[in-house]
Amino acid sequence: MKSSSHGLDSLFCPQSIAVVGASADPEKMGFRVMRNLVEGGFRGPLYPVNPKGGEVLGRVCVPSVRRLPKGVDLAILVIPRSGMLSALRECIDADVRSAVALTSGFREVGEEGDRVQEEMEALLKRTPFRLLGPNCAGFLNNLQDVYASIEIRPPKGNLSLISQSGSLMSAFASNMGARGLGVAKSVSMGNKVDVTEADLLEYLGEDEETHLIACYLEDLREGKRFLSIAREVSKKKPIVVLKAGRTPEGKKATFSHTGALAGEDRVIDGALRQVGIFRAETLDEFYDLSYGLSLSKPLFGNHIGILSDAGGPGVIATDAAVGYGFRILPPSQENQEELRRFLPPFSSVANPIDMTFTRDVSWYARALGLLSKEPWHGFLVIIPSHFTVRNELAETLIDASRHIAQPLFVSWLSPWEIPETMRQLTQNKVPVYTTPERAIHVMAKLASYGRWLSNQERL
Amino acid sequence: MKSSSHGLDSLFCPQSIAVVGASADPEKMGFRVMRNLVEGGFRGPLYPVNPKGGEVLGRVCVPSVRRLPKGVDLAILVIPRSGMLSALRECIDADVRSAVALTSGFREVGEEGDRVQEEMEALLKRTPFRLLGPNCAGFLNNLQDVYASIEIRPPKGNLSLISQSGSLMSAFASNMGARGLGVAKSVSMGNKVDVTEADLLEYLGEDEETHLIACYLEDLREGKRFLSIAREVSKKKPIVVLKAGRTPEGKKATFSHTGALAGEDRVIDGALRQVGIFRAETLDEFYDLSYGLSLSKPLFGNHIGILSDAGGPGVIATDAAVGYGFRILPPSQENQEELRRFLPPFSSVANPIDMTFTRDVSWYARALGLLSKEPWHGFLVIIPSHFTVRNELAETLIDASRHIAQPLFVSWLSPWEIPETMRQLTQNKVPVYTTPERAIHVMAKLASYGRWLSNQERL
Repeated sequence: MKSSSHGLDSLFCPQSIAVVGASADPEKMGFRVMRNLVEGGFRGPLYPVNPKGGEVLGRVCVPSVRRLPKGVDLAILVIPRSGMLSALRECIDADVRSAVALTSGFREVGEEGDRVQEEMEALLKRTPFRLLGPNCAGFLNNLQDVYASIEIRPPKGNLSLISQSGSLMSAFASNMGARGLGVAKSVSMGNKVDVTEADLLEYLGEDEETHLIACYLEDLREGKRFLSIAREVSKKKPIVVLKAGRTPEGKKATFSHTGALAGEDRVIDGALRQVGIFRAETLDEFYDLSYGLSLSKPLFGNHIGILSDAGGPGVIATDAAVGYGFRILPPSQENQEELRRFLPPFSSVANPIDMTFTRDVSWYARALGLLSKEPWHGFLVIIPSHFTVRNELAETLIDASRHIAQPLFVSWLSPWEIPETMRQLTQNKVPVYTTPERAIHVMAKLASYGRWLSNQERL
Repeated sequence: MKSSSHGLDSLFCPQSIAVVGASADPEKMGFRVMRNLVEGGFRGPLYPVNPKGGEVLGRVCVPSVRRLPKGVDLAILVIPRSGMLSALRECIDADVRSAVALTSGFREVGEEGDRVQEEMEALLKRTPFRLLGPNCAGFLNNLQDVYASIEIRPPKGNLSLISQSGSLMSAFASNMGARGLGVAKSVSMGNKVDVTEADLLEYLGEDEETHLIACYLEDLREGKRFLSIAREVSKKKPIVVLKAGRTPEGKKATFSHTGALAGEDRVIDGALRQVGIFRAETLDEFYDLSYGLSLSKPLFGNHIGILSDAGGPGVIATDAAVGYGFRILPPSQENQEELRRFLPPFSSVANPIDMTFTRDVSWYARALGLLSKEPWHGFLVIIPSHFTVRNELAETLIDASRHIAQPLFVSWLSPWEIPETMRQLTQNKVPVYTTPERAIHVMAKLASYGRWLSNQERL
């Protein structure tokens, strides 16, 4: 195994691409890959390779890899397992620099596949040629329009994803897209015969387009190297990991998925925490953390201010905040008196502040202005009710987020009715969650990130 | 306090309604209540009461409660606190049977409000007159078109909600509506001067339109009675409780919301479990449980079958299922061979079954048919990838759910793209969740419901 991320530039930023197994049949994978590359906007030379000849999307097929011009950056292999070894040898001979193998049927299916996979490993060890996969769903370099994948293409953005599963690539893209965020690079790893999770973490750690790295992992092929890279990357950008195969049965399922052997879960858990990685327990948490950590900064402190225009959600938020170890101090006497001046007599000016039924958005601006002067530094969570005029409030909150030092989080209780408002807030770096508990859970992770970063400086 | 739910029929199913404090000003609460009743389709006599006279929505105002015809079923009080006691006395004198008081400013704001609330309690104890509130957001009897509330009106359905918070009524309506479910009755309680959570549980327990009761509680005014009613109701229909005020700070916030004193949380927790109540820890869980328990039956067993067309989600589902104590047995040798006959060679026919990339929906029907013949009785969770032709698959799953004994749950990983499909499945009693973990969490609760019900029979 090559212990560096060298050579990955020709893979992720190719100037020329060959699709080995390209097809004109719209039902075939070899067509879908070609279509995604063309419609995705790839601007360099693109060579369909098919021994039967013909054309794919207006491009004449090259009959074999040997007939490609020398020095193609990337070959995408959409061929049966039986042809894999010879295709790889031909690629190496033709000076192709890297490949992605979508083909399945290797270690994950048992003995015969395992044998081929071992031969691939032995072959690749001896060359600088890089291979992503096999048994993977490809990758996306979104900002450079290299759509070398069969999964859903998300909007462009700054999140990057390393995933052992292709399906999770689509799910992540769909979830982040719905919230108004986009993806920079997205990679599915499959069986990791050559390129490993450690290579990819190193590569994305140095990638300026990537502000957060989300990883769905089923095993760690180069565990120690992954962790030591993670410790450095975590200081610059957050890493969120969903590690599957936590239970013995899950591990078994992992094996039939990509032929991977997952390690002892509790050991992994501690190791991840030590290097500053955020481990998500569930898919929801994986999405919530990736979203929130990419929008907000680490918090150095443990205070929280809760502002709503209804009582119940304020109580729920208070329970969650205290449960996660936050302190909830009341505003100063002076600020409480200021609040009383414009809020209804039956509102509550302690923390949580319950402004009660309001359609006057300026109350939010005034209350936030007062809270920003409190001596404690902490998070502010805003819980508007469905009565609140949503566009006006969104503008008020975006404006406030630019003028006050405390990070703002919004919990909008009827989010199904506010997709545009959610995207508007998100694009202005104000995270929106569907419940107070989810917002506050992410805040708690940002506070622990702050503690971790402080400890690293001290070391 | 009256210890029965008698008299609540005139409140929830009124033949005639007076709105005391009705207003023609669209900005005022006294207008919104009138508008909701009229547009909501209330068919009986409706009397706006306002000393200033005039008309509201084409109805001439009655100048005072004393001038109402005798025996009005329900008065909705939208008046300042200062007029509350005399309004109640006038209602009782005029033979009005029940009232809902939306007015705030009682025990929750301190001494002066507390004094008025005590006088109200003393007054109401001596009469059969029933009062919901004060400091509440009204109620909705959705199937009879009595929209006596200022909160969002959900579609019609079989869930009922008891809520201490008005804001939660809207959030619940919005969440269930988005998933394709509707509400039968929805009640906000406020300060519970007369009608308590126990009265409402008893009433809804006997209500044939109500198939599930969701409760957002901040305190228990009649704790013992509530629990003993719950034990009986739980045998007929599920009760889901979100109990706020879990932490000391949350309790304090509870008090400034409705002036309630919440009990010791751990004691409450055990008591709720003993009587078969599902306690939700978070708002998300509250929604997920209310939704799933209303669609599926309790499970008597602890087996699970996992069927997907992608590897990663199957692994995640397996971890979750094992974590919740489910057993995951492989299909019989015979069924595995049957599966091998039509699935691709690199698919996995153990449990979880990973059919891998498929656009052939008939695979789902065939695999489900085979699983239904397994000797274990349990849940089946289906995790389609985004490739799956969604409408066709929805029909296949609905059809399967009618022909096989095992309850089906679906986890659709890109739910933001399938709102109609989600509603279609929901309306055919197939629950859909956004992640495998959330689906399996609810299944685990249904399995524990099964154990509770079995124990009750043995007692």
